Amino acid sequence: MKDRIAASFAKQSMMQTFGAALDHVADGNVTLSAPILPGSRQQQGFAHAALTFRLGDSAAGYAALTTIPKDQDVVTAEIKINLTAPAIGDRLIAKGRVIKPGRRLIVVTSEVFALNNGIKTLVAILQGTMVPVQA
Amino acid sequence: MKDRIAASFAKQSMMQTFGAALDHVADGNVTLSAPILPGSRQQQGFAHAALTFRLGDSAAGYAALTTIPKDQDVVTAEIKINLTAPAIGDRLIAKGRVIKPGRRLIVVTSEVFALNNGIKTLVAILQGTMVPVQA
Amino acid sequence: MKDRIAASFAKQSMMQTFGAALDHVADGNVTLSAPILPGSRQQQGFAHAALTFRLGDSAAGYAALTTIPKDQDVVTAEIKINLTAPAIGDRLIAKGRVIKPGRRLIVVTSEVFALNNGIKTLVAILQGTMVPVQA
Amino acid sequence: MKDRIAASFAKQSMMQTFGAALDHVADGNVTLSAPILPGSRQQQGFAHAALTFRLGDSAAGYAALTTIPKDQDVVTAEIKINLTAPAIGDRLIAKGRVIKPGRRLIVVTSEVFALNNGIKTLVAILQGTMVPVQA
Repeated sequence: MKDRIAASFAKQSMMQTFGAALDHVADGNVTLSAPILPGSRQQQGFAHAALTFRLGDSAAGYAALTTIPKDQDVVTAEIKINLTAPAIGDRLIAKGRVIKPGRRLIVVTSEVFALNNGIKTLVAILQGTMVPVQA
Repeated sequence: MKDRIAASFAKQSMMQTFGAALDHVADGNVTLSAPILPGSRQQQGFAHAALTFRLGDSAAGYAALTTIPKDQDVVTAEIKINLTAPAIGDRLIAKGRVIKPGRRLIVVTSEVFALNNGIKTLVAILQGTMVPVQA
Repeated sequence: MKDRIAASFAKQSMMQTFGAALDHVADGNVTLSAPILPGSRQQQGFAHAALTFRLGDSAAGYAALTTIPKDQDVVTAEIKINLTAPAIGDRLIAKGRVIKPGRRLIVVTSEVFALNNGIKTLVAILQGTMVPVQA
Repeated sequence: MKDRIAASFAKQSMMQTFGAALDHVADGNVTLSAPILPGSRQQQGFAHAALTFRLGDSAAGYAALTTIPKDQDVVTAEIKINLTAPAIGDRLIAKGRVIKPGRRLIVVTSEVFALNNGIKTLVAILQGTMVPVQA
């Protein structure tokens, strides 16, 4: 399973663009991380929300991918993010988790943390729905 | 008001990174657009959701900015996106709108369209809450 | 179509329990209303959210029902509500609308208004996903 | 703290109307339960969503109430629900939890379970924002 997630991950050009790494893969659980680059450090929240969203959404999507047949992929049908703190630090870590697997709908959550000088702060939680599609 | 939004927009490095343009500003309404670059064209939905989210969230945030005092900025407290179609085409257009202004919470929505050979398709709707903060 | 919606509506015991009426049915659009009864007038927001949610969710669900084959019903997969004002008045009115029809997922929104001495105030907006199921 | 939550709970007429009980109160955590009455057992999902929403939203609201000063109350600013299974059984149980306390915004989640012949099934998860107000 880990190989499959890693292969899918490697194909995602945007993930590479922003330097994301695949830290952990287990059944229904995926952890990703990415550097908080100067270009994404905004004075205010728009970009914060966008970067945090991207990693949280991706972690949830990969978590969903661990629960479906190999010839399928997933797309985000809908997802909601609550930002809980500014994403200040060196690195973002997103832990995606499948709440309810399914053939038509997969309910997922993820938590996103900022790592600042070794201290982890929760910066967002997400809750959404992934849909399996033919790859 | 347009000058203020344009000035804030110009300061957002991430907006510039992905080539977004400020198309229209009115009281409680802002339209942004951005090219769909090859780097963000994914085989599947993760990046689609991320790029679409970013523009939709930004349009909603700038719409909120038109309704608050000049010494304030806004951050996204929470926002939800429903993806309605793949973001296929040359350009994304996001129309943000304030549903309910407020001193503590500003309820916003936005619609995101993909422009493909002159045909506009709705690719996402967003609904969320912006919070005014001291700039 | 109106007959079908009316028949489905008549079967919903909870809708009758709280006195809801089917005010308008068109393709992809349904308007419901219900009295704001003393039993549901809370000092604070829990019940407000619940009553408003129920009517807004129902209007969105019936709107979705207008877009699918007659042997199918819909269930709410997920829905989000933003409360924009206290539900003060005599009556709630909910306007449900289909944003994107589909065989697997139907994206919907609704707006809920309170009617107080003839004045309509927006009290909530909802955005969500309905799923067709065999009736 | 438990007394305060119990007193607030006792004042909520709608909670009593549908027979809800306050099962557990701790700092940032509240568990409620309520019978699934015949009147709320629908053939389909509208009422399911509404009843489940009400209990999940209430548990999240009371959880938020445990984290704020005694002269304040909370209202739901926004909340999202994902339904994960039909609410079949005798009783619903909702566990509300504060993710991020705050003076302006309190981020909350809750899980709702149906109890059917002693077997607990997750029927919904909620994620939202409560706002402190003067009581």
